[in-house]
Amino acid sequence: MAVDVVKGTRDFPPEVMIIRQRIADIVRKVFESYGFNPLETPTFEYYETLASKFAGGSDILKETYKFTDQGQRELALRYDLTVPFSRFIAMNPMLRLPFKRYQIGPVFRDGPIKSGRYREFTQMDVDVVGSSSMLSDAEIIQLTLDVFRKLKIDAIIKINNRKLLDEMMEYSGIPGEKRASVILSIDKLEKIGLEGVRKELEKIISASSITKLFELLNLKSVNDFKKVLPSSQGLKEIEEVISYVKSSKVIFTPSLARGLSYYTGTIFEGLSEKLSSSICAGGRYDKMIGNLVGRGDYPAVGISFGLDILSEVVKKDSAEKSVVKVYVIPIKTQKESFDILKRLREASVNSDMDIKEKGITKNLDYADKYGIPYVIIVGQEELKKNKLKLKDMKSGKEEFLSIEEIIKKLQ
Amino acid sequence: MAVDVVKGTRDFPPEVMIIRQRIADIVRKVFESYGFNPLETPTFEYYETLASKFAGGSDILKETYKFTDQGQRELALRYDLTVPFSRFIAMNPMLRLPFKRYQIGPVFRDGPIKSGRYREFTQMDVDVVGSSSMLSDAEIIQLTLDVFRKLKIDAIIKINNRKLLDEMMEYSGIPGEKRASVILSIDKLEKIGLEGVRKELEKIISASSITKLFELLNLKSVNDFKKVLPSSQGLKEIEEVISYVKSSKVIFTPSLARGLSYYTGTIFEGLSEKLSSSICAGGRYDKMIGNLVGRGDYPAVGISFGLDILSEVVKKDSAEKSVVKVYVIPIKTQKESFDILKRLREASVNSDMDIKEKGITKNLDYADKYGIPYVIIVGQEELKKNKLKLKDMKSGKEEFLSIEEIIKKLQ
Repeated sequence: MAVDVVKGTRDFPPEVMIIRQRIADIVRKVFESYGFNPLETPTFEYYETLASKFAGGSDILKETYKFTDQGQRELALRYDLTVPFSRFIAMNPMLRLPFKRYQIGPVFRDGPIKSGRYREFTQMDVDVVGSSSMLSDAEIIQLTLDVFRKLKIDAIIKINNRKLLDEMMEYSGIPGEKRASVILSIDKLEKIGLEGVRKELEKIISASSITKLFELLNLKSVNDFKKVLPSSQGLKEIEEVISYVKSSKVIFTPSLARGLSYYTGTIFEGLSEKLSSSICAGGRYDKMIGNLVGRGDYPAVGISFGLDILSEVVKKDSAEKSVVKVYVIPIKTQKESFDILKRLREASVNSDMDIKEKGITKNLDYADKYGIPYVIIVGQEELKKNKLKLKDMKSGKEEFLSIEEIIKKLQ
Repeated sequence: MAVDVVKGTRDFPPEVMIIRQRIADIVRKVFESYGFNPLETPTFEYYETLASKFAGGSDILKETYKFTDQGQRELALRYDLTVPFSRFIAMNPMLRLPFKRYQIGPVFRDGPIKSGRYREFTQMDVDVVGSSSMLSDAEIIQLTLDVFRKLKIDAIIKINNRKLLDEMMEYSGIPGEKRASVILSIDKLEKIGLEGVRKELEKIISASSITKLFELLNLKSVNDFKKVLPSSQGLKEIEEVISYVKSSKVIFTPSLARGLSYYTGTIFEGLSEKLSSSICAGGRYDKMIGNLVGRGDYPAVGISFGLDILSEVVKKDSAEKSVVKVYVIPIKTQKESFDILKRLREASVNSDMDIKEKGITKNLDYADKYGIPYVIIVGQEELKKNKLKLKDMKSGKEEFLSIEEIIKKLQ
């Protein structure tokens, strides 16, 4: 047997899974509190679906795992959760809109493995389809703030709007065909600085355009922008979203552009202050689903959280190695201890037991190694008295309690 | 775009996902209460791993989705969770045994689509590795009973032991090379009856062997068996397991054989009384992991639950269409209603809001269609008085309450 995981993939042992599950549970709870319902699509799709020209684009398609089934159908592992969701919308024309769904699941990209990039990774997405209202954009941003709060993450949200970017291009006299590459350049502002961007832009647009564009990029507030672009639709939308959310953690960032071409309005990105890296990103994409579906009008806005990066940010706070809360050590009382376990488990107290009669020292060492907070020692003497010895592994404190008292204490 | 799901796969819309998640959450909680820790392996493995001669066997390999990555590595989607788990054990020789893990995830088989068979389906597995003790077998059966109890499923567990089946063969004078096909025949007893089995066996073994075997199959209790096979190791193990569990739902069934060849001791199967179909199955497999790993001794016992069949059994009890508990209807108060939503969501009350100003009648209809239990109607008048109208959709009762009172009521 090939004793290895596939290149670019990982096993998640208990100590990692416990954190990942805790994060996913909290995020799911926030998603549901915002009225998003769960939806699950299959792990793979017809290749044709994922290769549609309105889907992820040619770069992502190069990284798509492709295969055929026994019926010679061309299939592919999903590279995101948005395109399968669009396919679901297309298949269910009777769905009442707006439709709000979340999905948590692995996606797959056969790309180069740089640090932090994996070929299988988990995304947690929410999307609203069928709403043009800025209330929906605001709701997604509010939800993101709530995820940060519940996970105790220090993070901010940068917000911008594709319409504003277009208006900035217009104002700067940048011709339509050059706007995409100018936007890509602006997006690097934080990384390479104003001078770096200037150098790049000098190869693309005129000096006067650069001057006008930089005049705008140096403005910091919405109000300053309004003086220069008083009738901007993008600014109006940003203002509306900000007025609903009213949080100092939401920061208008005119240089934020987001790589993907399908965004049409609000765009946003969550940044961890600790790692200064992106932990979620999204925006409004009013055209993509309609284009994919080939009919109708499907304005949409959504965000995607990366479970891997969230685990990195949250990780240090806790390092549970086991879900077990109490470990039962029988001293020649296996049968009776099994009955004690039944009681604990019936009461939903996560519990386990030594089945190898390893002796007390080895068992305490085991409980300690796995960070199990309590042990119960069960000897004949204790059984007779109906008082079991409960040891707090952290403080070392020992108490003699009945099983009922133990359950009450540990529940 | 190909507007279809791949043949043999399914989308799970909210009304289905809500039930599936509830089941998976309950099962996960039971798994953890028994001290099983979460583990996750990747969705795909090296083909060589899954094709190992000690793994799933050639039948399952024919149904394995195979593909190559850009580095020309041969990969395959996992067809179960046990082989990847064995690969994990092999890669982690320093792991302390016994090691107890659970995994919940999709597996893939490119097989014929009969009713109820899908090409992607979800398994929920628990396994203990490194324990020969019958306490572990008993624990898995106890866990299964607990899953049934917590899911309110009427089900029984049939139990048998591969060693006993061998001893029955021995007693009946059935030669070694014929035992596998005789076992397969016996396994059909419930389906085709004693006479059906007799007809099949007549083609394989002698009349006297059939007589002796049927003498045993007609015995119902462990005690009756003991009179005929007083020194049977299989019986001894069954007795020990039963003595720990002590439940009338665990039924000794000498004809239970389980198809897979890798079982070596206890075998069991959970059967729903409602659907009379198998909802979980497992057993002891003391040789497989050691064979796969190519070294060491890895006695193991485990069980696998099918999420699809569990959803079938549980389904009828509930039919929630949305996770939303309260729907806010603004009457020209969108901004203020958004603030009310913030409060509800901060308090983890699943809530949603009309963003299209559809009017009260349409909104009540919407809430009704999705089975949302409460709506809040927010007009200017209500805001002034700080008393919002909360309507119970089931009873029709309306109350005027402050937002604090509403949160308290709905939490």
